[in-house]
Amino acid sequence: MSERQVDFNALQCPIPKSEYPTVLLAHGGGGRLTQSLIDKLFVRSFANPALEMLHDGATLAVPEGRIAFSTDSFVVSPLFFPGGDIGSLAVHGTVNDLAMCGARPIALSSAFIIEEGLPMETLWRAVSSMREAAARAGVPIVTGDTKVVDRGKGDGLFINTAGIGIVPEGVQIAPQRARPGDLILVSGEIAVHGIVIMSLREGIEFETALSSDSAPLYELVAGLLEAAGEHLHVLRDPTRGGVASALNEIASSGDVGMRLDEAKIPVGEAVRGACEILGFDPLYVANEGKLLAIVAREAADAALEALRSHPLGAQAAVIGEVVEAHPGKVYLRSRIGAERIVDMLSGEQLPRIC
Amino acid sequence: MSERQVDFNALQCPIPKSEYPTVLLAHGGGGRLTQSLIDKLFVRSFANPALEMLHDGATLAVPEGRIAFSTDSFVVSPLFFPGGDIGSLAVHGTVNDLAMCGARPIALSSAFIIEEGLPMETLWRAVSSMREAAARAGVPIVTGDTKVVDRGKGDGLFINTAGIGIVPEGVQIAPQRARPGDLILVSGEIAVHGIVIMSLREGIEFETALSSDSAPLYELVAGLLEAAGEHLHVLRDPTRGGVASALNEIASSGDVGMRLDEAKIPVGEAVRGACEILGFDPLYVANEGKLLAIVAREAADAALEALRSHPLGAQAAVIGEVVEAHPGKVYLRSRIGAERIVDMLSGEQLPRIC
Repeated sequence: MSERQVDFNALQCPIPKSEYPTVLLAHGGGGRLTQSLIDKLFVRSFANPALEMLHDGATLAVPEGRIAFSTDSFVVSPLFFPGGDIGSLAVHGTVNDLAMCGARPIALSSAFIIEEGLPMETLWRAVSSMREAAARAGVPIVTGDTKVVDRGKGDGLFINTAGIGIVPEGVQIAPQRARPGDLILVSGEIAVHGIVIMSLREGIEFETALSSDSAPLYELVAGLLEAAGEHLHVLRDPTRGGVASALNEIASSGDVGMRLDEAKIPVGEAVRGACEILGFDPLYVANEGKLLAIVAREAADAALEALRSHPLGAQAAVIGEVVEAHPGKVYLRSRIGAERIVDMLSGEQLPRIC
Repeated sequence: MSERQVDFNALQCPIPKSEYPTVLLAHGGGGRLTQSLIDKLFVRSFANPALEMLHDGATLAVPEGRIAFSTDSFVVSPLFFPGGDIGSLAVHGTVNDLAMCGARPIALSSAFIIEEGLPMETLWRAVSSMREAAARAGVPIVTGDTKVVDRGKGDGLFINTAGIGIVPEGVQIAPQRARPGDLILVSGEIAVHGIVIMSLREGIEFETALSSDSAPLYELVAGLLEAAGEHLHVLRDPTRGGVASALNEIASSGDVGMRLDEAKIPVGEAVRGACEILGFDPLYVANEGKLLAIVAREAADAALEALRSHPLGAQAAVIGEVVEAHPGKVYLRSRIGAERIVDMLSGEQLPRIC
């Protein structure tokens, strides 16, 4: 078990099995059972003053300036996997989307769509994991919603989170800021999360245990902002579609070309092996605890050092550069020196990875 | 057709049937098809500068002060019904939750969980309806997410919206502000939305056509704030669980008692008839375009007048009062003068009503 994970054995579900072993439709009906579920499972877990107002929404004090706002739904299957679960993923996913705007996350919402019959214990584990992940990321869960759908009309549990963050003054992070000459950095070994989920589904085991990289990235971003300041142009977390799709999106939105150097892209041994067995290109496999940073060349050394000084960025590397040629397209120089185009993911390589 | 609804016949789905008649798993894979779905269906429909940045999140300028933050998932079945659909409901629901904090909504997120095989046209209709509802409510949809789950693991379409609103200075709306002596107002005839959905499911037809009351309520709230100022103590939209559950929640959070006068609670003839046929108490049936306001007695006339001056509040009425006796409990004086306790909804009267 990773030290980032919750020790479920030490926890006791506050709704005992003898009372409600599973979630019922009535837990989403808006009446007494909904109220009891909210009180016992959600409010006690996520305890904070804004949530405890039990209003239709939370109110938060903000300074004048810019805020970031983001949302993601999580439909990962299976719900629990080495290194995390749908609960921690739902927290990290939105915290990271905010961080990719250069924003310090200040509040999350959480909305649950539960399939009738889900063991109450399973919901409790996911909620406990959210609580833990939110506490570690320093972000309160201030408002939420619970819906229950009939058996066969969902798949256990879907979680949506939305989040608000404060963008520090002067910070301008956007794909449109990528400029020819900028360097492209990645914060560590890629393709871990996707390979963990796919291996689990395919029943593949590794000699060395692999855990999802799911993690909150705001501290890395704060370090980058301090080290590179306005030279930090673009941030992106390469989740679904992997590094290849994320860079294609930036190349397209920013109307710039990119060149990657395959030899410089960090890929772990176990992941490389699994990719060969499963027939995946690690460039297209989802990450949940890595970021791509596009930085002005003069600030790249400082940015790399900032990343490497944090445990989550110890394997950070410069993997390529932004170029003027072929705007909207990403090229890769392979280990043997051949050049090929790296397209956006097409097809359905990895459904329900997050 | 209600004039609030979209004329779908006048619209053309931008992804033609010949290309993708239904949503595929790959539309949620994070690659080319996801990109195309986002561009063609979502970004073009919801067009606004924040969304068009195509970043992981949107950034918004806010004044110093308090913001409201809320979320709701929508799992209504069927997806389309007289007076609305899952799209307009998803916009109104979150706009209204913000309004119930006294906040002027400034931005929405939208996150779609689509079941593989959903007709592309159905998604397009829901999205068009969201666009229309957001435009009428004056709130841009600035960020979003798309997930696709495999066939049999969802139910066509679930939509989550989250929203941010600005709370005007000095506004303090919260259940804890309810005080003995305050009057309880409702903005119009209750139980309409729930009865429309249940009748549709049960195949019951009425002589006079019934349409859902789904509507954005911020204008009503703005009127109330202007008329009653700080005398406006609590707002709540009585959705799932109806007026009875909403008032019970307030009574419990605010630690006050309430007395309602059945004769004063506006219930339309068709709804009353349907409730008798279906065996429902209108006090427990969901509303999607009504609000409850708890107002200091001295400001109640002005508040009532403000509600009645708006088309959505024309049938507004004072239906009861906050009392010192029996804190946490709601009593009703029936038409024949008997008193009974009005409890929170127990059980699953109306699953998937919103």
